[in-house]
Formats: sequence, structure tokens, C-alpha cells
Amino acid sequence: MYLYQHQLLPKDEVAISPDDRAYYFGDGIYEVFRVYNGVLFEPEGHYRRLEKSAREVRIPLPYGVDKLHSLLLELIGANRLQEGTVYMQISRGVAPRSHPFPQQAEPVVMAYCSEVSRTLKSMQGGIRAVTADDIRWLKCDLKTLNLLANVMAKQHALDQGADEVILHRNGTITECSASNFMMVKEGELFTHPANHLILHGITREVVLRLARQLDIRCHERAFSIEDLSSAEEAFITGTVTEITPVVTVDGKPVGRGEPGPVTRRLQQAFEQLIGIDQA
Amino acid sequence: MYLYQHQLLPKDEVAISPDDRAYYFGDGIYEVFRVYNGVLFEPEGHYRRLEKSAREVRIPLPYGVDKLHSLLLELIGANRLQEGTVYMQISRGVAPRSHPFPQQAEPVVMAYCSEVSRTLKSMQGGIRAVTADDIRWLKCDLKTLNLLANVMAKQHALDQGADEVILHRNGTITECSASNFMMVKEGELFTHPANHLILHGITREVVLRLARQLDIRCHERAFSIEDLSSAEEAFITGTVTEITPVVTVDGKPVGRGEPGPVTRRLQQAFEQLIGIDQA
Repeated sequence: MYLYQHQLLPKDEVAISPDDRAYYFGDGIYEVFRVYNGVLFEPEGHYRRLEKSAREVRIPLPYGVDKLHSLLLELIGANRLQEGTVYMQISRGVAPRSHPFPQQAEPVVMAYCSEVSRTLKSMQGGIRAVTADDIRWLKCDLKTLNLLANVMAKQHALDQGADEVILHRNGTITECSASNFMMVKEGELFTHPANHLILHGITREVVLRLARQLDIRCHERAFSIEDLSSAEEAFITGTVTEITPVVTVDGKPVGRGEPGPVTRRLQQAFEQLIGIDQA
Repeated sequence: MYLYQHQLLPKDEVAISPDDRAYYFGDGIYEVFRVYNGVLFEPEGHYRRLEKSAREVRIPLPYGVDKLHSLLLELIGANRLQEGTVYMQISRGVAPRSHPFPQQAEPVVMAYCSEVSRTLKSMQGGIRAVTADDIRWLKCDLKTLNLLANVMAKQHALDQGADEVILHRNGTITECSASNFMMVKEGELFTHPANHLILHGITREVVLRLARQLDIRCHERAFSIEDLSSAEEAFITGTVTEITPVVTVDGKPVGRGEPGPVTRRLQQAFEQLIGIDQA
């Protein structure tokens, strides 16, 4: 079942108008929530970010957070989702194609659930990354439907036999195509500051919180590809990828070319948080 | 009638799948053609640009140009369009949401006609513009569905009581939200070079061609807001706006604050080209 225009509907009854501004302009925002054991993970962070995206692109949210939350719970219940994701997008509305905001249009909410298992193979063995120019716009902190640059960058990585791309602006690493990036150097954690050049990942925040609890020193500070070349460990963070080690970058090993001890400690703390038994 | 998935259909039978990548990612390209007297204006330029956009975002075009052209003629005929535009977009296809290119999906073509009259009032009296930061991505030469920055910039202009926005990167003028920008200084024409920072407008090309025919010297060279402040004339060029004078920028008059003689000569040459009787 999908949530569409305030109703639960079977997917094949969801018919998007060609005049939906998401279709013409990518004029909308979205969130991807993680569900563990039937429960939304860190929903408050997602709602806060949604409210920020909505405010900055000036799409009035059709529901307050409480109502939105109860609709998502209804959706999860109707789909009996235990382990997976909830995708939700909100477009500015339906109106004949014209750049200015339409006067009358109401925002269109569409949400659905996907069963997703934890990507244990990558989390345990790590992934390969390649670097590429970050050519995106200058409001990467907004979670909008303008994702073509991310799509192209991700495909670029796959075409080279890698799993993910590390984006950089003139050598300064920002983030990945759909995840944030962190490195460990001299036992300390580094990640790009949460400004307009990266998405402010919910998992990124969780990991920084866990690291501080583990007395790992954290630096939200930009660093370069060259800095990365002497890092001991690196990993990405994301709603589905959680904490996934990066073991090679552009074909060269990160540290020893295997998941490192700081990454492992953070993974364990994360698994504790989401209630995975580590027996 | 709409053209959708190789067929002519009434609009209310066009039901877009929520899994269309245009809807999730803005993962598609488009063109807006002008029709004068029932005839497509400069279609070759649009097809060339479409082919370039398709090649660079790696969407295989479902038709060759000849077939595409005959489909558009069929659409224009079915709608008995005399004066207006044809909007056409091609998305990468329909597939469950995931960043990488889908393996199986076929591109989705959607096109429709709109009756549009020439915006004579603006063309004769000119429009007001305001300047704003150009925060778009670094492939503005591709005509893609990632248009949120353009939408926001256009609305910013309207909110200030202006008609259009002049975008700049650190003071260097690039173009407008949906049109190119030109200024006249010491009788010569200046416009941003056709690189990755602007859309390579068909009307822009036509105007440069007409200017050369009229022995107006043309410079495809970047210039700044400060350069503009001492310009004699300025105008925008676009498929619907044609050549529209800009008479104020940020509230200050351009030259004498009225459409100037070089702009008028170009407008007359343009009208001759599109077959408007100037009696």
C-alpha cells in the first residue's frame, strides 16, 4: 500500500499527474526513514530535516509532525513492515507547467515502504570507492528531488567497478552520492562540516554522537583527498548503509585495506542502538 | 492530446508511474519548441541540443530525429496548434527507486502543446530584473529536469515585484531563470560564452546570427554586474520571450530605462525571420 494524497492505496492506483511539479522540475523534497523491528528509527531527526527542507524551498507541509508520524505508522502497519525503509516525498503540487510557484496548488504527499535487509556483506567486508568532482548545486543541505548529479556520480562509480563515489570540490572531500563520508586519522574522526555543501545525514549525527560517547575525538572539518591518502580508516554513513567501511579509494587501500578498529567499535555501538543482539 | 509512450492520448489518460525516474530524481531531459503559424521554429537546433543532453546524461533516445520530428508534427496536427509551444520531456524510465541507472527501463517520452501568444507588452515595454546568486550545478548546458534552483530564482524575482532574475556567480553574470541575457555597450553585443555555466539557448544563437547579419559586433564573453551598470541596453532571449528588453536591474534603469535602438533592430530582424508582417 502507498500513502498518496492523504489515502492508503494499492500502488497500481497511484497515478501521478504529468502536471505534478516533481515530474517537470524535481520541485519537491523527500526523506528516507529506516524501520528496524517495525519501529521508525530516529524519526525526530528526519522530521526536523524535512521541516528545514520545506521551509527553505518554501513548500508548506500539509501536516504537522504528529499527523505525519501517525500516517507513517499507519502505512508501516498496513504493509506489516518489520525491516526496511519508508520513502516519502512531497512535491509543490499539480499545476500547468510554469516556473513560478502556483497560486492554488496543494502539496502532494507520496510514501511507500520497502523491505530492506541490512547489507551485512558490505558492512563487514567494506566497499570500494572512487573520487569524482562534486558538480552539484550549492544547497546540498536540502533534501530535494533534484538528484541527477547524484545519480550520475553513483553510476560513474559502478562503471568503474566501485561501489560508491567520494565527491570533492577542488580536492576537498564533501560526501558521497547518497551517504556522508568520514575518515579516521591518528585515532580521531574527521567529516565535512554540516554546511550547505553536504546533506546533514541522520546517521552522520548518530555516529558523531556515538563516537563522542566512546571518547573518540570528532572533527567536523573539511579535509582533502591528499589528507585521506594517509588515513587509517574510512567509512560512509547512511540510512541504509549505516556504517560501511571504505577499504579502497581509486584502487588504493585505505590504511591496511580492511575495516579498521575504530569503524568496528562504531558499528558495534550502532548495532547496540538499533537493538541487534551481538551474541 | 498528449504524446505519451509512443501514443497520442487525451491528457486525463496520461498516468505517470510513481516509479518514473523523472518523479524521484528529475532524471530526464526536455525541450520547449516554438510553433509559429503551425510550423516548428528552428527544430534542428532543438534536436541537436536534445541529442547533446541525452548523450551527456546517458539517456538513449527512443527515436531518431526524423521519427521524433514526425511524432511532433502529428501532435501539432492533432491539436491544431497554430501559435504556441510544444513541451517534450524524456525520462530515463520506470524502475524501483535506486540511484544507479536501471538495467531494463525504457525512456519515457511525454509531450504536449500549449497555445501561447507572443508577449507583446513585455517585448515592447520591457521588463524589470533583479540579480541573484547563481547556485546551480556545473552542467547548466544540459537541459534537464533538475530545475528547482531556476524555480526558486524566478520566484525570488516575482516576490520583489520584478519579472525575471539575472543570475551571477561572484558578480559574473551567467543567464536568467529560463532565458539567456545580453547587454549592449558602445553599440556592441555582449553575452556569456556558451560553456557549462549557461544553457545554450536556441534564441540566443538566432540573435547572435541576426546581429552579425546586421553588422552588430558580438562578444561571447563573461561580464559583471558592474559592467552591466554602464550598459546602454540589455535584453533576455528565450523561446517564448524571444527578445525582451530589460529596462531596470535591481531598481536602477538600464541606459535610459527604456528599450534601446539595438534591441529594436534585433527584434525587427527576429520578427522578419518568424514571418510577422511589420506593416
